[in-house]
Amino acid sequence: MAFQKIKREDDYSKWYNNLVVNADLAEHSAVRGCMVIKPYGYAIWEKMQQQLDKRFKETGHSNAYFPLFVPKSLFEAEEKNAEGFAKECAVVTHYRLKSDPNNPGKLIVDPDAKLEEELIVRPTSEAIIWSTYKNWIQSYRDLPLLINQWANVVRWEMRTRLFLRTAEFLWQEGHTAHSTRQEAIEEAERMLDVYAEFAETFLAIPVVKGVKTPNERFAGADETYTIEGMMQDGKALQMGTSHFLGQNFAKAFDVKFATKEGTQEYVWATSWGVSTRLMGALIMAHSDDEGLILPPTIAPIQVVIIPIYKGLEELETISQKVKPLQEALKKLGISVKYDDRDTQRSGWKFAEYELKGVPVRIAIGPRDLQNNTVEIARRDTKEKMSVSMDGLTETIQNLLEDIQNTIYTKAKAYQQSNIHVVNTWAEFEAALEKGGFVSAHWDGTPETEEKIKDETKATIRCIPLDTTLEEGLCILSRKPSKQRVLFARAY
Amino acid sequence: MAFQKIKREDDYSKWYNNLVVNADLAEHSAVRGCMVIKPYGYAIWEKMQQQLDKRFKETGHSNAYFPLFVPKSLFEAEEKNAEGFAKECAVVTHYRLKSDPNNPGKLIVDPDAKLEEELIVRPTSEAIIWSTYKNWIQSYRDLPLLINQWANVVRWEMRTRLFLRTAEFLWQEGHTAHSTRQEAIEEAERMLDVYAEFAETFLAIPVVKGVKTPNERFAGADETYTIEGMMQDGKALQMGTSHFLGQNFAKAFDVKFATKEGTQEYVWATSWGVSTRLMGALIMAHSDDEGLILPPTIAPIQVVIIPIYKGLEELETISQKVKPLQEALKKLGISVKYDDRDTQRSGWKFAEYELKGVPVRIAIGPRDLQNNTVEIARRDTKEKMSVSMDGLTETIQNLLEDIQNTIYTKAKAYQQSNIHVVNTWAEFEAALEKGGFVSAHWDGTPETEEKIKDETKATIRCIPLDTTLEEGLCILSRKPSKQRVLFARAY
Repeated sequence: MAFQKIKREDDYSKWYNNLVVNADLAEHSAVRGCMVIKPYGYAIWEKMQQQLDKRFKETGHSNAYFPLFVPKSLFEAEEKNAEGFAKECAVVTHYRLKSDPNNPGKLIVDPDAKLEEELIVRPTSEAIIWSTYKNWIQSYRDLPLLINQWANVVRWEMRTRLFLRTAEFLWQEGHTAHSTRQEAIEEAERMLDVYAEFAETFLAIPVVKGVKTPNERFAGADETYTIEGMMQDGKALQMGTSHFLGQNFAKAFDVKFATKEGTQEYVWATSWGVSTRLMGALIMAHSDDEGLILPPTIAPIQVVIIPIYKGLEELETISQKVKPLQEALKKLGISVKYDDRDTQRSGWKFAEYELKGVPVRIAIGPRDLQNNTVEIARRDTKEKMSVSMDGLTETIQNLLEDIQNTIYTKAKAYQQSNIHVVNTWAEFEAALEKGGFVSAHWDGTPETEEKIKDETKATIRCIPLDTTLEEGLCILSRKPSKQRVLFARAY
Repeated sequence: MAFQKIKREDDYSKWYNNLVVNADLAEHSAVRGCMVIKPYGYAIWEKMQQQLDKRFKETGHSNAYFPLFVPKSLFEAEEKNAEGFAKECAVVTHYRLKSDPNNPGKLIVDPDAKLEEELIVRPTSEAIIWSTYKNWIQSYRDLPLLINQWANVVRWEMRTRLFLRTAEFLWQEGHTAHSTRQEAIEEAERMLDVYAEFAETFLAIPVVKGVKTPNERFAGADETYTIEGMMQDGKALQMGTSHFLGQNFAKAFDVKFATKEGTQEYVWATSWGVSTRLMGALIMAHSDDEGLILPPTIAPIQVVIIPIYKGLEELETISQKVKPLQEALKKLGISVKYDDRDTQRSGWKFAEYELKGVPVRIAIGPRDLQNNTVEIARRDTKEKMSVSMDGLTETIQNLLEDIQNTIYTKAKAYQQSNIHVVNTWAEFEAALEKGGFVSAHWDGTPETEEKIKDETKATIRCIPLDTTLEEGLCILSRKPSKQRVLFARAY
C-alpha cells in the first residue's frame, strides 16, 4: 500500500489522522468540517450502536425521533443552554433556491423565500424535546419518561479533526423526565455506569468516572457526570457525559406534573450522550504504528483466513479445508472472512489486515495441509504460532477472549502507571510533561482552574467519584482543599 | 381514552391523522412540517430498518455516512437533479448566533458569520456522494461500489401530512457505482425486488412493480422503478423507488474508471430509497375504525396478556400461570407484554391494545383458571375463542402465522378487485370514481399524461413490469397505444 507511514512517537497527531484515512475509517468531505464515515468505519460504529442500544433498552428506555431543526424562539428559551451553543450554530434562513438570472445553469438563494423565524440545526435537542414533553407530561403517571434518540447534530467548530471534533457528528442523546430530584440523579448516574461498563468491557478502554467542575458542565446542567479515557499520548478524552439538568428545562418550557397528592410541580430532567468521538477513543487507546488494534468485541472482521498457494489446484485444496472451518466459526457467532482474491499477494493482505486491526489472522499453506496445522497470528501482540487443525475453533474462541483481556489489561496498566499524584506546583508541571492524569489538590475556585488552564493547557477532567476526602493545599493558590481532582491535557 | 373516533367512510383523511396521533405513532412538532416520531411509532420503524438492513447486507451492500450539508456548487452540478429539488431546499447561510443588543436574553443571527458558500440541507445525497466517489473510484477493481446510508433528509413541503409528506423525514438511500450499463440496470431491478418482497412478506402489502413515465422520473434518472401500493380508499401510494441513473452523475462529477483494457470510461450509477412514508402505507393498508391492524412480523408487541381479576390474591394466582407462558413465548422469539397495571380497567386495556394493533390479545380470568383455558382475541378479524392452556404456545405461533396470511390475503383481494380495466374515457372516469387503479391505454406523450392529470387528478403510477404488449387506443387522444399503464389518484 502506497501511503505514508508515521510513527506515534514522531507525530502522534499526524499518526492518528493518517491511520483514520489509511484504515478506511473516515475522511474529510467537501463540506468544511464534516466527515464521510467510510464503510469500514461505519461497521465499527454500527457495532457500538447495537451494544449501546441493547443496554439502553435493558434499562427501560425507548427510542424516538425529534426534528433536526429548532426554531430560534425555542432554542433561546433555556438561556444558559442557548448561550453555551449560540456561537456554533448552523442557521437555516431560507427554504428555496432559484435560477440565477445572471448565470444560466446556476442557482441562487431565493430572497423571497426567507423564513419568518430562523431554524437552528440542532447542536443538542433539549430545547425541541422539552417543548414536546410539555404536551406529554401531565401527571405523575406519565413519569418517568425514558427516551433516547439516535441522530446527527451540528456544532460549527473552527478546528476540526476526524471523529474527535467535526461540525456534524452522529450520536445518541437520552432525555428523561422524572418526578423527583433523587430519581433523576439516580438515572444520570445509572447511564454513566452504562457508558463506563460499555467502554471497559466492549471497547476495552479503562475509564475514570467523575463529575465535572461547574466551569466544565454542560450548558444548562446542574451536574455533569463524565467518563474520561486516557489515550496513548497521555492525553485525556472525554468519552461520554450524563447530565442532571435539575428543573432548568422544565422551568424554561413550563413542564409541570400533578403529583399523587394533587399539587403541581416542575419535572426533573437528565440527558446523556456518546458520539462518533468514541471512534477516536477506540483508535487512539489501542492502535500501534502498523495500524488499528481492535478488541475482538468491536471488530467487524474478527478472523481473517489467507491461503498461501501456488496455482489454482493448491488454492482449491486449501479452500476445501477452509470451508468447514469458516462454517464452524460462523456458528459460534465469530465473524470470519476468507480472502482468496488472486489480485493481491499474501504479503499485501497481511499488511492490509494488520492496518485494519483484524484480531486474528490465519494463514494456510501447502505445508500446513501436510502437517494438519495452520499459522495463527494475533494482531495485538504480533505473536505467531503454528497450531493443529484439531480443535481449531476452540483455540480461536479462547484466543479471541485472551486478546480482549490482553488489550484491556494493557490499557489499564498504562492508565494506572500514568496517574501521577502530586502536591506542589513544580511536581504538577513535571507530571504534565510526562503525560497522563495528574491527581492534585485544587482550591475549588473557577479562578484558579482558569489560571492553571492558561498556564499549562491542563483542565480539570473530573472530580473522581471514587475519591476519598483528604485535607491538602491547592497546588497553585496553596489555599486549603478537601479533595484531589484529576487534571490532564485533553482532546 | 378521550379522543374523537372517526370512521374511514366518513373522512378517510381525518381518520388517518387521528389514528396516527391516537395510536401514539407520531405528532406534529413545533417546527413547521416536521414531525416527532413517538416511541411506539419508532419501534415499528426500527423493525422495518432491521429487516431492510438485513436484506441490503445480504445483497452485498455496506452502510456508510455522508454529510448532511451539500455546498451549493456541488448541489447544482447535476442540473436536472438540482432543478428538481431547488424549490424545496432548506438553506444554511450563517454559522453563528449572537446576543440581541436590543433584547436582553434573546439571540439574533450574527451578520458577521455569513457563509461564503451556502449549504443545502440534503434533500437526497447523489451530489455529495458522487463528489466523494470521484476519489474512491479509479479502476474497474474498485467497482461495483455498493453503499447504503440511513439518514434524515429535508424537502421543504408546503402541505404536509404525518409520515406521508413531511419536511424532514427518515430514509435509507442506496448509491451504487458499476462498470457497465447492464450491471447498473440489474442492480436497480434487484433492489426493486428487495423492496417488493419486503412490502409483501413483511408489511403484508401487495404491490405493483413498474417503471415511471419520463414525467414522473426522479430528477436526474434515466429510469425510475417503483412499487405502488393500494390504500383502503383506493388511492395509490408510491412505497419505494429504485433509479437507474445512467452516467449522469458520473459526468457531472467527472467520475471515470480504467477498464481492464486500459480505457477510461464514465461510471454507471443507481440509487434507491424507502422512507418513513412506509409507516403511512402500513397504517392505511390494513387498519380499521377501531385502530391499527399490524401484521405480526412488524408489531412491536405481538401478544398482550391481560389478567381479569378482583383483588390481589386472584391477580397473584393468574400471574403465576402467566409467567411460564410468557417465558415460553419469548423463547420462540415472540414479543409478549403482560399488562397487570392496576391503574386501568381491563376494558380500557382492551381498547388500548386494539387501537395499537397488537395482533393477539389473551385474557385470563378466574373461570379460565378453573377450566384450564384462556380467551384469545385476534385483532384482524376480531374473533374471540376460548382455548386450552395445553399447547397454548403452539396455538399462538400458528395463530400469528394465520393472522399474517389473512391480512395479506385480504389486502391482495382488495387490490385485485380494484384494478379496473377500461377502454374509453367514460369508463375511465367512472372507474376513477369507484377508486383503485385503472388499467388503460395511453398514447405515450407527456402532453396527454398532463391533460389527464389536470382533468382527473389521476397520474400514471407506473407501466407495470409484468404487463404484456397489447394494441389499443389511448383513452383520451384515441391515438394508437401498444401497452396498458396504471392510473390512479395518489398520495
